[in-house]
Amino acid sequence: MKKIGILGGLAWPSTVEYYQTICRLSQQWHTGKSFTGPTPMPEFSIESLNVNYSVNNWGTTNHDQSWQQWDTYMNSGLKRLQTSGADFAIIASNTPHNRLRTISVGIDIPIIDIFSAIAELCKQNDIEEFLLLGTAPTINQPNYSGQLKAHGINSIVPNEQDKKIVFDLIRQLYTGNFKGADSTLMALVQRTFSRSYNLKPVVCLACTELPLAFPYLKDQAIFEHDGVTYINTAVAHAEAAFRYAVEDHSSEHRN
Amino acid sequence: MKKIGILGGLAWPSTVEYYQTICRLSQQWHTGKSFTGPTPMPEFSIESLNVNYSVNNWGTTNHDQSWQQWDTYMNSGLKRLQTSGADFAIIASNTPHNRLRTISVGIDIPIIDIFSAIAELCKQNDIEEFLLLGTAPTINQPNYSGQLKAHGINSIVPNEQDKKIVFDLIRQLYTGNFKGADSTLMALVQRTFSRSYNLKPVVCLACTELPLAFPYLKDQAIFEHDGVTYINTAVAHAEAAFRYAVEDHSSEHRN
Repeated sequence: MKKIGILGGLAWPSTVEYYQTICRLSQQWHTGKSFTGPTPMPEFSIESLNVNYSVNNWGTTNHDQSWQQWDTYMNSGLKRLQTSGADFAIIASNTPHNRLRTISVGIDIPIIDIFSAIAELCKQNDIEEFLLLGTAPTINQPNYSGQLKAHGINSIVPNEQDKKIVFDLIRQLYTGNFKGADSTLMALVQRTFSRSYNLKPVVCLACTELPLAFPYLKDQAIFEHDGVTYINTAVAHAEAAFRYAVEDHSSEHRN
Repeated sequence: MKKIGILGGLAWPSTVEYYQTICRLSQQWHTGKSFTGPTPMPEFSIESLNVNYSVNNWGTTNHDQSWQQWDTYMNSGLKRLQTSGADFAIIASNTPHNRLRTISVGIDIPIIDIFSAIAELCKQNDIEEFLLLGTAPTINQPNYSGQLKAHGINSIVPNEQDKKIVFDLIRQLYTGNFKGADSTLMALVQRTFSRSYNLKPVVCLACTELPLAFPYLKDQAIFEHDGVTYINTAVAHAEAAFRYAVEDHSSEHRN
């Protein structure tokens, strides 16, 4: 298995989710296979950053200048993963994918991005359009939706009032408070699709906190709830990373 | 906060436990403090090793020669943490602490060891003696108990038959199967203390899987259950690491 680099901490519950998902996938993948000792696991390097520093240094516009300090912070983390011998990297968070082009400058290992993982899942499930929910950079700036568009996926976003509700919900979920989160989210989704009645109700939870609103469904890459299809981008991305890790078995470990 | 290095993956559920515990401690520690944005978190570098390679390369004797390959595997992981800028390191597992002297050769950053964390907790709770449960290297070889002895703690181990039960229990818990684990463990503890009736019933769960036998108590460094005091070494160690991380605030982040 390839060594997996994870740029994490953005925020930490997502890093736990990615790491656990990949380890469980390794457990499943090895079931019935022959080996001695405890179930083999891929090696990981994880750089868990300070989410406070990250959010406080978000750019205020879509211009590179505005994001310079933040870009450097992410890029340095990716460089450390590379130095630690990761064969490839994933960024365990949606928001940094808005700046994928700038933060991956000088990184020589492959970065398995979240857009390809979402696109793959959408293709398997005949999804071409969805409601995109996430942090301010993800739903207000054109980068994220633009990358999805390049994969043939059209995304709509909530109205301004509902955007604020989404941002508040993300803050609430980050503190570990899940109370009422599912009904807030479901009401928002119903409102949006009642305005866009010709759309198949599919929601892309493009912030790794959002699936925490549905604690019993949060381990699935795609799930149905109350007539709506939800995409858990964290699980879809972690699954894509594990598939990539097992494509080649030349580096079981490195000393 | 200092940047925390974690040598993990031995096994992965313990790494989750350490990381979560430290992040929750940061959440608590910042409560009521003034800051802008999401709650600050320490930065982490985590090197998650392959537990299969580790266990398959355990030494068969207590001689350095027998552990050479394993020592190198651990030492390289610690070196990568240092290179990634960790200000100090912890090893998120009891077993490697048996070889702390050899695996920390050439490591210049402090390693906050599990023995000091256990000793601190024992001091606070007037504990001078306990039943030590863990993997084969931990309870069969003199290193681990010797380090505790140096901290003034006397440890007893189960008889040969019960040792096997402990090893089987650890394997079971590692696969995520907690069924009946609590009663198996409690019966073993009762048997041992009924033979050593003059001892205060205190058990040191010196394998980070063992607390998983008590899912509702596993987040506490020390807890009572059915008249027995249990020490959760993983939580005690994670708490010690967080205390060390906040002792100095000169490096909130590094680029």
